[in-house]
Amino acid sequence: MNPRPKLRSPPPSSVVISPGSPPKSLINKMPRKFTRSTLTLATTLFSILALYAFFNTFIFSDPPNNVSSVSFSRNYNTQNLKSVKVYMYDLPRKFTYGVIESYALARGGEKQSDDSLLKYPGNQHSAEWYLFSDLNRPSLERVGSAATRVMNPEEADLFYVPFFSSLSLVANPIRSNNAVVAPVERPAYSDEETQESLIEWLEQQEYWKRNNGWDHVFICQDPNALYKVVDKVKNGVLLVSDFGRLARNQASLVKDVILPYSHRINTYTGDIGVENRNSLLFFMGNRYRKEGGKIRDLLFQLLEKEEDVIIKHGAQSRESRREARKGMHTSKFCLHPAGDTPSACRLFDAIVSLCVPVIISDHIELPFEDVVDYRKIAIFVDSNTAVKPGFLVKKLRKVSMERVLEYQRELKKVKHYYEYEDPNGTVKEIWRQVSLKLPLVRLMINRDKRLVKREFTEPDCSCLCSNQTGILTTL
Amino acid sequence: MNPRPKLRSPPPSSVVISPGSPPKSLINKMPRKFTRSTLTLATTLFSILALYAFFNTFIFSDPPNNVSSVSFSRNYNTQNLKSVKVYMYDLPRKFTYGVIESYALARGGEKQSDDSLLKYPGNQHSAEWYLFSDLNRPSLERVGSAATRVMNPEEADLFYVPFFSSLSLVANPIRSNNAVVAPVERPAYSDEETQESLIEWLEQQEYWKRNNGWDHVFICQDPNALYKVVDKVKNGVLLVSDFGRLARNQASLVKDVILPYSHRINTYTGDIGVENRNSLLFFMGNRYRKEGGKIRDLLFQLLEKEEDVIIKHGAQSRESRREARKGMHTSKFCLHPAGDTPSACRLFDAIVSLCVPVIISDHIELPFEDVVDYRKIAIFVDSNTAVKPGFLVKKLRKVSMERVLEYQRELKKVKHYYEYEDPNGTVKEIWRQVSLKLPLVRLMINRDKRLVKREFTEPDCSCLCSNQTGILTTL
Repeated sequence: MNPRPKLRSPPPSSVVISPGSPPKSLINKMPRKFTRSTLTLATTLFSILALYAFFNTFIFSDPPNNVSSVSFSRNYNTQNLKSVKVYMYDLPRKFTYGVIESYALARGGEKQSDDSLLKYPGNQHSAEWYLFSDLNRPSLERVGSAATRVMNPEEADLFYVPFFSSLSLVANPIRSNNAVVAPVERPAYSDEETQESLIEWLEQQEYWKRNNGWDHVFICQDPNALYKVVDKVKNGVLLVSDFGRLARNQASLVKDVILPYSHRINTYTGDIGVENRNSLLFFMGNRYRKEGGKIRDLLFQLLEKEEDVIIKHGAQSRESRREARKGMHTSKFCLHPAGDTPSACRLFDAIVSLCVPVIISDHIELPFEDVVDYRKIAIFVDSNTAVKPGFLVKKLRKVSMERVLEYQRELKKVKHYYEYEDPNGTVKEIWRQVSLKLPLVRLMINRDKRLVKREFTEPDCSCLCSNQTGILTTL
Repeated sequence: MNPRPKLRSPPPSSVVISPGSPPKSLINKMPRKFTRSTLTLATTLFSILALYAFFNTFIFSDPPNNVSSVSFSRNYNTQNLKSVKVYMYDLPRKFTYGVIESYALARGGEKQSDDSLLKYPGNQHSAEWYLFSDLNRPSLERVGSAATRVMNPEEADLFYVPFFSSLSLVANPIRSNNAVVAPVERPAYSDEETQESLIEWLEQQEYWKRNNGWDHVFICQDPNALYKVVDKVKNGVLLVSDFGRLARNQASLVKDVILPYSHRINTYTGDIGVENRNSLLFFMGNRYRKEGGKIRDLLFQLLEKEEDVIIKHGAQSRESRREARKGMHTSKFCLHPAGDTPSACRLFDAIVSLCVPVIISDHIELPFEDVVDYRKIAIFVDSNTAVKPGFLVKKLRKVSMERVLEYQRELKKVKHYYEYEDPNGTVKEIWRQVSLKLPLVRLMINRDKRLVKREFTEPDCSCLCSNQTGILTTL
């Protein structure tokens, strides 16, 4: 049996005021007792310190004879029981605030006198902003995070490279009729040049060279972010949305972390229920996409005639977000077909809307899948089955209201994982996921440096393979 | 900076006897003070309990809104900060004590009236015995282990299958001239039948079927152990010596754990030093091996004429172990060529002998490589270079005494990882390594169950690939 301690009471307020001491108001009137009470308090405080020391010495201390011990597992402290030490590079401005500025200027914004006035624009790839801001917060506000920021790189387990690679992709000046807007006053920003210049900068860093990049963490949430240099950073832990644009030797579930997109519509704050969810299925988004997303047009053709289904073509805009929010908050199910790559932000909009996602994206990878069982919150249908005429709506109409409520109940339990602004939300979970990579990172660092020449007919890979043959639908 | 608490004193003995209380011997003579002292003690104790409760409630408790939370990361308790919950199957006797009995009977042993009288025979694959015994110890003796045993399978994160698969391999009756010894009185033990019967037994277990085996842990330390059924257990976490006999879709560094062999010669208990280590290089073992081990004969030919090298052919016996101990305790370097598979127990004998290992085994995988940097304790030479006439001894003779001492110092720091009997040794580290697999195990369980039909031209694998081209030698 698990010897989990049972003591939970008395309440924490008893820690300082001990039961033997008189109420505070009486203290001044009782000089003799005051002395005794002081003694008791001193004793209590001392005991607390002693106990603290005991914990610190015997329970949280490093075991003896322990070289190259992993901070991940052993450097516990009371604030941060299993945190890894992360050093965030102080990158040249052009890789962080400079990207925001270029983005703003290209859209007619004003130059700001102070970086703190620059506002990272709202978009689905803003994890890069949230992580950067999080590490910049005072350590007292970061209690409980799996990543402790260290200011000395020598102490670091991992190195975070906070380049705003997704915003950089779209910071290029908007082109109209192939002419760059205002090319004279503002030299055109170039994402590709910025990517390459990041690598040049990194290649001068001692810690980048030291372990061949294995202990570096990069964020490239837009599937096209860092595309030009990804081969140079592929040893690192990549924070990505999916593996749609990445080769098997560049990224994997084992080495990297799948992030949720930031949801773009407001969270549904009401309780679970189906009374106000009159439409069966909702989808709003681009009808025409490349690759896996081609299924969208087929689904439109099938679904747009169904009475209880709302399916609309729409691009990103404030107006369409407002409409999407209304749709997602008043539908039982929300369709999630693949985009150009298997992932799309719509899934996370559906989750925070408590609108049960119907995922039609055969190659999708999902964030935090060790702690979230997506079968409890979503329905999966394989593409071939989904496009059979009548299949989808027929099946969805048959789902009982009790079952919908159950999905909603589960959605409510996990939705904090998709809230970047929740202190117990996405950012915290991303760091936890990153911290879990440390043992493998250490292993690869040590192993790579002692490997001797070998003759291989195939690459030297350690894999985790799925042996499932695949199911058709979880409906 | 890492806000690690600095308090380490006062010493733990102060925890119970508070400074305000009189020495124990005075208590009976001081009735009034006794009362006060009792009050102080009670207060102190109460504060301790309160503080404990505070810790338990606020620091170690599960965060709110946390469904399907991973015990690995969140179910802290003071004894076992990041333990996973392991259920050990109560296997039918024939898979545990029955194997020891069959082994003993086949070697002329007596039938024992009580399983506690059965002695697991000393051998290099005895990790299976140590893990089984460890989980059978009272939980109070297992404080600090990363694996907490639970008696209710419903609570378990992982399921340990304690079949003595390595001993089973050699428990077949010894054949002399192809005739089974005493076939009439004792029906021949069959390892293959036992393996198959284990699978039959497992297939009736609800928890085996539930997650397709991903959350099951098997030990197969002998590279041939479980060979007949390994395809059926390949989803599980395998505790192995190397991947010599395993296919890439059966085992990997990512999914499995590399164990050290139990060392077979006594630990060197003296201090570091080279005064009593007069021979340069020592090796004793089988000259002729299959596959990677063919290099042994070549090395014998090269090295047996060198004056300061001791290289001897020898098989396992008490006498040769005695001789090997003498050699390893009095040599600076100990040769570790590949055996039939890349690993061999000799490496671990060398480590506990503080005899710097010279590893000539290009495909070797090493235990606990996330916490042990083997370049600090061993020398790696690639096979092609090692067999160049004169190369090895010339290089080794050039290593400074200071450098040898440095290797020894590092060996001393890590040798507890190779001591199965050390409470802070191998067994504890194996469970830590197993516990690190849990997030990936959970991920694979959840992911496999929601995967829909996909068309793949290659297996669906997540890999970690080494991009190194290989070095020749770390000398």
